[in-house]
Amino acid sequence: MRILVTNDDGIFAEGIYDLAKALQDIGEVIVAAPNSERSATGHAITIHHPLRVDKVRFFDTTIEAYSISGTPADCVKLAVEALLKDRRPDIVISGINNGPNLGTDVIYSGTVSAAVEAAIMDIDSIAISMGSTNITQYTDAANFVCRIAKEIIHNNDIKDTIININYPTCPKEEVKGVKVTTLGVRKYENTFIERKDPRGNSYYWTSGNVVDMEQNQDSDILALQNGYISITPIHFDLTHFKTFEKIKKLNFQK
Amino acid sequence: MRILVTNDDGIFAEGIYDLAKALQDIGEVIVAAPNSERSATGHAITIHHPLRVDKVRFFDTTIEAYSISGTPADCVKLAVEALLKDRRPDIVISGINNGPNLGTDVIYSGTVSAAVEAAIMDIDSIAISMGSTNITQYTDAANFVCRIAKEIIHNNDIKDTIININYPTCPKEEVKGVKVTTLGVRKYENTFIERKDPRGNSYYWTSGNVVDMEQNQDSDILALQNGYISITPIHFDLTHFKTFEKIKKLNFQK
Repeated sequence: MRILVTNDDGIFAEGIYDLAKALQDIGEVIVAAPNSERSATGHAITIHHPLRVDKVRFFDTTIEAYSISGTPADCVKLAVEALLKDRRPDIVISGINNGPNLGTDVIYSGTVSAAVEAAIMDIDSIAISMGSTNITQYTDAANFVCRIAKEIIHNNDIKDTIININYPTCPKEEVKGVKVTTLGVRKYENTFIERKDPRGNSYYWTSGNVVDMEQNQDSDILALQNGYISITPIHFDLTHFKTFEKIKKLNFQK
Repeated sequence: MRILVTNDDGIFAEGIYDLAKALQDIGEVIVAAPNSERSATGHAITIHHPLRVDKVRFFDTTIEAYSISGTPADCVKLAVEALLKDRRPDIVISGINNGPNLGTDVIYSGTVSAAVEAAIMDIDSIAISMGSTNITQYTDAANFVCRIAKEIIHNNDIKDTIININYPTCPKEEVKGVKVTTLGVRKYENTFIERKDPRGNSYYWTSGNVVDMEQNQDSDILALQNGYISITPIHFDLTHFKTFEKIKKLNFQK
């Protein structure tokens, strides 16, 4: 199988290195990732300036690798539609992210958006993130992804599904198991810090502490808190079908 | 009602001017919008550099207005959590965008992401876009939004719903009516154009032509093509509930 690997921490991050190395055991690996960190870029794409692509040596490996001056979604789009035009990947795997991508937060995530971009192009995809930034190694998570990739690839039942994985940072023997989850709710407080520059003008830093909220029993946040690997199936159809009929009844006039 | 207005075309775009002016008839209007165009920024937020805020004169009006060095999602977050901390808006309205936000494309849209950010903060919201870039005036769309805002505000039945509107650019008398729709499918071909710089190095422009695809009968794309105003209820929970049970059956082991 041909595997396109990307991330949002940048092409020279530790997580993408361990991921790409491990994936070599199960297929042909190509890396196409941002030339620097692009966290919290969500599903941004670059339309106002052109993209540069540099073919680079990927650490100590011989893996084919492209460093791109764009967002994670740009990288997947450009790799599939231009760089690998005649070598379409079977799967896109994004990560391993240095920190979690859980609940409401996935909408801001460059890591997850890269996987979503693959799904939009009808390619199977996985996003993989470490459950905290307190990381000692990425190898266990990388090996886990290899197994998941083999299980989900070309499975028509889950064709339009992006697999979003968060992997605990505890030692492997302490991992409780695997839970298939739904996206929980994440909210923040004190989200902006105001400072003054030397000329007395204000500027604001985006910040914020996670608020402890009650979670649904299936929540990815809860699963991770309890020591499980969370696997959340996600998709890109934002239509709110539950309120569709209610909105229809409002009977809007032109 | 207190109305926060934003967009992704930048604070001095025509669309936001006509929108804010019209909304003055139904409430207190505050504008907080990007200081320049931020199209296709999706749900990006700014975490690696601070945000600057300038209080600005908004065209020929006395509307309270803030020009912000961030994305549309940043603008909504910062306005609600910092600038209007003790004056929480009742509704956030984003637009009027110079061009459509339909189908799969809404995931890339700064206009829609601003409205999504409001929903994440439990605030009612509307995204409004013109159905094409062939725009002669924004006034009809702005007046339409005033009516919709009054209908949906504080309606508990549709509390967690973002209202995504696309308004035809034909004369008002030719508008066929209003359709409540689902997000259709938008795909592109020839998505990258490769060029050479004067030193012979390649660069790529994101481009692409919309592929004509078969649409579901409820599709927003179809409604607009047929001369209707499309109203699509959307939400931010990306969980793919349809495949949740199927994924569970795969029985992953740690």
